[in-house]
Amino acid sequence: MKRSFIREILSSIDKETISFAGGLPDENLFPLTTLQQSAIHTFENAHNLQYAMSEGIPSLREKIAMFYTQDGFDTTRENILITNGSQQALYIVATYFNQQSIVIETPSYLGAMGAFNANHMKLKQVPLYNDGIDIEKFLFNFRQSRLAYLIPDFQNPTSAYYSLEKREHLAALVQKIGGYIIEDAPYSDLYFEYKAPSISASIPENSFHLGSFSKTLSPAFRIGWIRADKTLIQKLLPIKESIDLHTSSISQHIIDRYLESPGEYRDHLKQLRTHYKVKMDFFAQTLHRSLPRFDFTTPLGGMFIYGSLENIDTYTLVQSCLKNKVAFVPGNQFYARQAINNEIRFNFTHASPEDITKGIQRIAEVINQDQTPIVTP
Amino acid sequence: MKRSFIREILSSIDKETISFAGGLPDENLFPLTTLQQSAIHTFENAHNLQYAMSEGIPSLREKIAMFYTQDGFDTTRENILITNGSQQALYIVATYFNQQSIVIETPSYLGAMGAFNANHMKLKQVPLYNDGIDIEKFLFNFRQSRLAYLIPDFQNPTSAYYSLEKREHLAALVQKIGGYIIEDAPYSDLYFEYKAPSISASIPENSFHLGSFSKTLSPAFRIGWIRADKTLIQKLLPIKESIDLHTSSISQHIIDRYLESPGEYRDHLKQLRTHYKVKMDFFAQTLHRSLPRFDFTTPLGGMFIYGSLENIDTYTLVQSCLKNKVAFVPGNQFYARQAINNEIRFNFTHASPEDITKGIQRIAEVINQDQTPIVTP
Repeated sequence: MKRSFIREILSSIDKETISFAGGLPDENLFPLTTLQQSAIHTFENAHNLQYAMSEGIPSLREKIAMFYTQDGFDTTRENILITNGSQQALYIVATYFNQQSIVIETPSYLGAMGAFNANHMKLKQVPLYNDGIDIEKFLFNFRQSRLAYLIPDFQNPTSAYYSLEKREHLAALVQKIGGYIIEDAPYSDLYFEYKAPSISASIPENSFHLGSFSKTLSPAFRIGWIRADKTLIQKLLPIKESIDLHTSSISQHIIDRYLESPGEYRDHLKQLRTHYKVKMDFFAQTLHRSLPRFDFTTPLGGMFIYGSLENIDTYTLVQSCLKNKVAFVPGNQFYARQAINNEIRFNFTHASPEDITKGIQRIAEVINQDQTPIVTP
Repeated sequence: MKRSFIREILSSIDKETISFAGGLPDENLFPLTTLQQSAIHTFENAHNLQYAMSEGIPSLREKIAMFYTQDGFDTTRENILITNGSQQALYIVATYFNQQSIVIETPSYLGAMGAFNANHMKLKQVPLYNDGIDIEKFLFNFRQSRLAYLIPDFQNPTSAYYSLEKREHLAALVQKIGGYIIEDAPYSDLYFEYKAPSISASIPENSFHLGSFSKTLSPAFRIGWIRADKTLIQKLLPIKESIDLHTSSISQHIIDRYLESPGEYRDHLKQLRTHYKVKMDFFAQTLHRSLPRFDFTTPLGGMFIYGSLENIDTYTLVQSCLKNKVAFVPGNQFYARQAINNEIRFNFTHASPEDITKGIQRIAEVINQDQTPIVTP
């Protein structure tokens, strides 16, 4: 098994390197004080430090269920399995569908492909556009696999946001054909304009909807979840149990306590959206100004700006950029077959405005140097 | 996949039931105040809430390495991979050895067999005695499998404590034949008399030594680890990464901070040992008095009293006991092939003295009732 490029980059980046690589939230926006209060409360009760249930602690499952219900997607705690981040949610579902074929968007999330490969699944790649997956090719492949992995909200890496029409169309197709979608939704609350309904809400018995607090509260807790039909949750439970018995209940209790004041989290999300919109605009403007050859669509939410540099092999480019102390993820990493590719994923949420300016400048320098990267045919 | 009996019992037990089932530590001994201080410190620094490395945070890996080195087993942080409890350590190693044969003690730890089965391993059962595994049968099976899973310190479920002779003998055999042992050691610090050296210390390149803070600090953190040769750690890393990216760094930082004052943890462990010895003595005396038919060897540490009730099928017995509001784990659960069995595992660390008295009384009542459980031939 190979390590992921992003994890390798993350663990090798030094302090001088400006990184647009990882999908890191802005540390300045972590609600430290309120979380600290919640932590103090957690350690007042010895019972919080004992073994907990594999499903997750009931009160947190209940609160997560409530978020769905408020969005018009009826959910109870029996529909929720707490996982160690949504990466583990992917791994558990992949273990459940072990060795089967699965339709994925092209390009797609690296960590998901890792979990699918680890479970010997066969990846059926279908092109992705700004408004969602190619419906015709989806249909062709889904008829055979009856299983698909989709990231409809601000997709990783492309930031594609599925149109309402495609959401409805896909739900209708899955309803008709049968089978399941795994709907990965870690960025859903990071919208700039409007929140689209999940596809899963229309097909509650044919979907695994994955959520996470990693992008909205903090990734250090490793709290994600699977929302699915309760008979499916019961089938996933022994897998979760054999992997690690249960998710850190210290993490669970702190977040559970934090969510006790619902206004707190709602206001925090509003602040995130406002702040990330400003950052995205700044990043996009800086790209237009300093790297005009980079062609991209402005995202409607999420954490990434994705685009392409005509005639430049970005995997070769990133090696030179790392030497010039700036990092990003080259597009080829997001394809199951890593052919030569001229795309780049930039994370816009983590770096400071100063670093955004400096970092993009450094990339432009590398491109403009004599030693330009290998040009693709 | 089946859920484990213990997890099912744990999640169904009501407040009136006295449970000797789970391997739960005594909640009264959690160092709440110091951990709370460590938690407060953790939430002072936003960087602690960001994504972390898959290996675990460096300072905690360093401290764990130091514990080994202090015990005479040279270890650096490169030898340590932090896992989500030692259940995940087992799962990761099992994934690495996917589908291979493995020698296990009989009886053995339920969760380990679960992780091995989930990874399609073939279990080669070898009898276990009070002083360790049957050497001759070990040798016969290990020659073929070159892989073994052992719990030499206060084994779960039997509390067997390997003799120094057997430890040396086993290390010499593995050295000679080649291959690996997975040495599971969550109870090693819970000794009453003396701490035996690990088998792994003699064969550092042929061993995975698994440790955990679940039994010594608190299971809610889900912090365990694998100690192995650093080339092996590098091979396990992509598996850890695909399962969940990394272990809760909130949990890691709190424990790391707690361990900053080394005297604190040392004194805590001393207190645990003293307290658990008193509890074990009380449990053993109560068994002698109220359930004289239960035959067992007094443990030298750990969390369990294991023994047998002549002519009683304990799996049938536990069903009646659950109705009479007392729980334990019947011996058949610890065998790969669950035949009729007259053994019982009692956890002695969790229940209060009053509940120990009452609980054993309730079991005696069930046995003495007219409706005695099915008697084995």
